[in-house]
Amino acid sequence: MLTRLELAKDWVRDAGNFLKENIAAPLEITEKTRYDDLVTNFDKEVQEQIVANILHHFPEDKILAEEDEEKIKFDSEIPHLWVLDPIDGTTNFIVQKDNFAVMLAYYEYGVGKFGLILDVMKDKLYWCDSHKAFCNQKELELKERPLAQSLLGVNSYMYRSNSGGLLDLSHQTLGVRIIGSAGISYGQLLEGKIIGYFSSLQPWDYAAGSIIAERIGYVTLTISGESPHFNCRERVFTAPSYLISEIQKYIKK
Amino acid sequence: MLTRLELAKDWVRDAGNFLKENIAAPLEITEKTRYDDLVTNFDKEVQEQIVANILHHFPEDKILAEEDEEKIKFDSEIPHLWVLDPIDGTTNFIVQKDNFAVMLAYYEYGVGKFGLILDVMKDKLYWCDSHKAFCNQKELELKERPLAQSLLGVNSYMYRSNSGGLLDLSHQTLGVRIIGSAGISYGQLLEGKIIGYFSSLQPWDYAAGSIIAERIGYVTLTISGESPHFNCRERVFTAPSYLISEIQKYIKK
Repeated sequence: MLTRLELAKDWVRDAGNFLKENIAAPLEITEKTRYDDLVTNFDKEVQEQIVANILHHFPEDKILAEEDEEKIKFDSEIPHLWVLDPIDGTTNFIVQKDNFAVMLAYYEYGVGKFGLILDVMKDKLYWCDSHKAFCNQKELELKERPLAQSLLGVNSYMYRSNSGGLLDLSHQTLGVRIIGSAGISYGQLLEGKIIGYFSSLQPWDYAAGSIIAERIGYVTLTISGESPHFNCRERVFTAPSYLISEIQKYIKK
Repeated sequence: MLTRLELAKDWVRDAGNFLKENIAAPLEITEKTRYDDLVTNFDKEVQEQIVANILHHFPEDKILAEEDEEKIKFDSEIPHLWVLDPIDGTTNFIVQKDNFAVMLAYYEYGVGKFGLILDVMKDKLYWCDSHKAFCNQKELELKERPLAQSLLGVNSYMYRSNSGGLLDLSHQTLGVRIIGSAGISYGQLLEGKIIGYFSSLQPWDYAAGSIIAERIGYVTLTISGESPHFNCRERVFTAPSYLISEIQKYIKK
């Protein structure tokens, strides 16, 4: 019998293939909370496909999914909980037809068991089991660099407004990069292209990335230094544990 | 006999192959004007190779090259002038081993005849002849989008400090992306992933990109609305001609 992880890899790959096949298709685009918070018919279709797959195999499992109007609450009492972002970086998906990801994470009693991030257009699946992290078949490892010789992935608003001290922190580095997708940013972090990622995120934005990154020595915290709460949008960052105390000289509530 | 364009494509491709073959090699890194303005032995080696190629075939041609300590002046009296950036995005080259470019442009009496930008790690050569622009073998064309449904490529300092009105302009769009390389940004622009690129650039940063982009309907201007002067670092942008007047409501000296 295939494990949840093996099945999840297939589902995410299938979703990626579906999106690639339809990359030139006309989109139905709807604004959500504001003019730059967009959703397409493909976000909804991918979510429906993956949710149907999960419930077909595991009808008792719970699912926290971005495009659900009424969302279940993340709770460490739940034996089997999935967290799904069907298309992360929807604006990139619409405008760039590139730099977007399908993300899926799985928790048992609040503990992250595995995560998957598919960089759809580059065919890169970042994933982990309970011990190790991979990009496709290649095992990932932390590349240690001094903060001063590193780049940061940032959210544009937090950076320019020095929210949480992010602009101050950036001055201790070689600079910032803005990609417009948490999933693609986590991919760059896992490959060592950025040393930390700082943004204002919902649980489905950081669930998979935080689990995968943890396997190679990264920590995900709120800017107050707490564990993320998994119940709202909040300012969080993922960075290597060896840099946390140095980062926290600048990153403050 | 091979034309300058045909030869230049070979030289740039050869440089890209050399960099890829040596991507894991140890680097000798030197600071230039400040801690985040870096140069490596590979910038110098690629420049030496391409300069030697040009002078071997065309000993009378002039070359404006980034890593020359004494640079010749761009001048519309020069019959054959090359502008070379051996590695654009040197910080990305060092830290990311990705998102850097080799750029070469060619002018006759001040008129851009062709440009080449090689995205080394993605094997994408953006280039043009006197009429058309291409990515590898695929002809490029302008993808018209309204400003409000577009993304901007920006320089981090100009964006956060609203230099030239860039932050104001960004609020009329779906947001900004920061890549850390003019060459890679021009590549995204040529593929329609960003609608405009705004940065503080030297001539070798915008020479190739401005020539290629012009072939498909883009214009390169200083933030004052003049043609770039090709003699110093200045704030320039490249955007489609149909958007210039709308952009200039926000972008001002």
